[in-house]
Amino acid sequence: MANAELRKDPVVDRWVIIATERSKRPHANRTTTVSDGGEACPFCAGSEGMTPPEVLAYRDPSSNPNAPGWRVRVVPNKYPALNSLGDIFQTTDSAYVALNGVGTHEVIIESPNHCLSMAELGEEQVEDVLSAYRSRLIVLQNDQRRKSVLIYKNEGSAAGATLEHVHSQLLALPIVPREIEQEARALIAHYAATKRCLYCEMVDTERANGRRIILESAAFIAFCPFASRFPFEICLMPKQHSPAFDALANEELSELAFMLRQSLQRLLGIVDAPLNYVIHSAPLRGLKREHYHWHLEILPRLSKIAGFELASGYHINTVAPEVAARQLRDIAL
Amino acid sequence: MANAELRKDPVVDRWVIIATERSKRPHANRTTTVSDGGEACPFCAGSEGMTPPEVLAYRDPSSNPNAPGWRVRVVPNKYPALNSLGDIFQTTDSAYVALNGVGTHEVIIESPNHCLSMAELGEEQVEDVLSAYRSRLIVLQNDQRRKSVLIYKNEGSAAGATLEHVHSQLLALPIVPREIEQEARALIAHYAATKRCLYCEMVDTERANGRRIILESAAFIAFCPFASRFPFEICLMPKQHSPAFDALANEELSELAFMLRQSLQRLLGIVDAPLNYVIHSAPLRGLKREHYHWHLEILPRLSKIAGFELASGYHINTVAPEVAARQLRDIAL
Repeated sequence: MANAELRKDPVVDRWVIIATERSKRPHANRTTTVSDGGEACPFCAGSEGMTPPEVLAYRDPSSNPNAPGWRVRVVPNKYPALNSLGDIFQTTDSAYVALNGVGTHEVIIESPNHCLSMAELGEEQVEDVLSAYRSRLIVLQNDQRRKSVLIYKNEGSAAGATLEHVHSQLLALPIVPREIEQEARALIAHYAATKRCLYCEMVDTERANGRRIILESAAFIAFCPFASRFPFEICLMPKQHSPAFDALANEELSELAFMLRQSLQRLLGIVDAPLNYVIHSAPLRGLKREHYHWHLEILPRLSKIAGFELASGYHINTVAPEVAARQLRDIAL
Repeated sequence: MANAELRKDPVVDRWVIIATERSKRPHANRTTTVSDGGEACPFCAGSEGMTPPEVLAYRDPSSNPNAPGWRVRVVPNKYPALNSLGDIFQTTDSAYVALNGVGTHEVIIESPNHCLSMAELGEEQVEDVLSAYRSRLIVLQNDQRRKSVLIYKNEGSAAGATLEHVHSQLLALPIVPREIEQEARALIAHYAATKRCLYCEMVDTERANGRRIILESAAFIAFCPFASRFPFEICLMPKQHSPAFDALANEELSELAFMLRQSLQRLLGIVDAPLNYVIHSAPLRGLKREHYHWHLEILPRLSKIAGFELASGYHINTVAPEVAARQLRDIAL
């Protein structure tokens, strides 16, 4: 079983990626991230040879590929959860369904310097990162084997990072994950019934209420969701209906960079927590894309995911989002 | 907002318990469990006054309630996620749905001694713990306000434990959680189509295949599920159709204690990992109970729940269940 495999639970809608190659990561099971103390960081400028060759880099025009001179660099994950080659076929072991694990797993290295947090990056640097996301989404969505692309960040060991150098990841999948499919189906059903988008209505509700809003720009709103799973959870959402991240215009990317950096810095002003963020964008195919409404969820990891969460699929949150939003809104930067 | 509140995400099927009282736990946000070094452990024999009064205890007949002499003790959670008093009413804030947080949150203290792991307990002690679960389930299911009862264990800080003294928890809810509802609906649909239980079929498949089985007793099977989310995940399941944990006979409880202790000790023989276990038993009301098939899932926490898992609802597992089962089967105890 050298290659990755996608397996479906026979009862509930839950796929698992069985990726035994990833257990070979040097620090797969350690509880802290690699520090800059002893070992060379493979994401720092000058260490380009420690990663697979780059698939995208924003760099000084006089510099060479896979050499210093870059601002943001995208490389294949050295220990991918999915393999990029091959056709997708279904393997069936009696009652069970599996797919061979074809997909794309990339790392977006967000700075040539050994920063530990995106909150340390300047606004233009954050904009470069978001621009790299858009570029890779545009390229990868042309592959008919992909049904969705997830972009996510693990920052801090407790949030799942194995390397501390500021980075995020992209995983293109041959399936639509449950969380995105549930959102997409709910949005499609709501549109069929009302001719309106449920997330557009949510933005209206939040703006009318105001208590959960952190800040707004011309095109975006940052708020703590009514049913926040985590203390200080933040949702960034376009105010106008917008199905997919890859359709963002340059001026929107720039505004989003401002909003994201503001959100991360405000959060850091309250608590220095490990965090994840995830981008939910329209599935690439299989569901009507136009009814989706993309958004970015910032998920601070102040509490543990424990037995209750695993047993139920639900969360316990000890900070009301109205309280979190007030603190995030009022903090002086 | 002193009382707990259950809030429903307006788009996906995801409830959140907003429980601000729980942030008052002395160690709510620390990253390690309370050690026996400095502070008194509220779960040790002699510290009974540090917990709310017991609702159940197996104890020496000559001993007094809330005093030493017990083997297993069940107490209300001092910082409950839900409140046990009051009627359930729905509060609607414009587009959003919430319930006031009425439920029951109890702690099962599994030993009077300061053990750190259930694997250290003797078989009779484990049987007492399972018997306490059954007793509390029988009592709590009579309350018409409850729709489900979750029993789960957090062992080790990374698995969400805030106290290290061996214990598990019970949470009775006014809703049926997504994971159990999805299972129940799939089982009901499969029965309607085939007149068979999908989990009974899975047991047959596993026994015919054999590669994922760890051990069997007369009534139970322990196996690594085909779509295991975690390395060394173990499922304990009755081989005969059995909807609910609370219907277990005494001799079955005793056999289950053997199987659970065997599973935990075999796991410990391979890796000393933080872990959760969760019991999925038939929802109390609202869905046909007879088609459910209860089971206990042991979820070792060797890997982190990171951005991918939160973005997708799926997991990446670096150890194939066939490999895990072989190791768990072959280990000498």
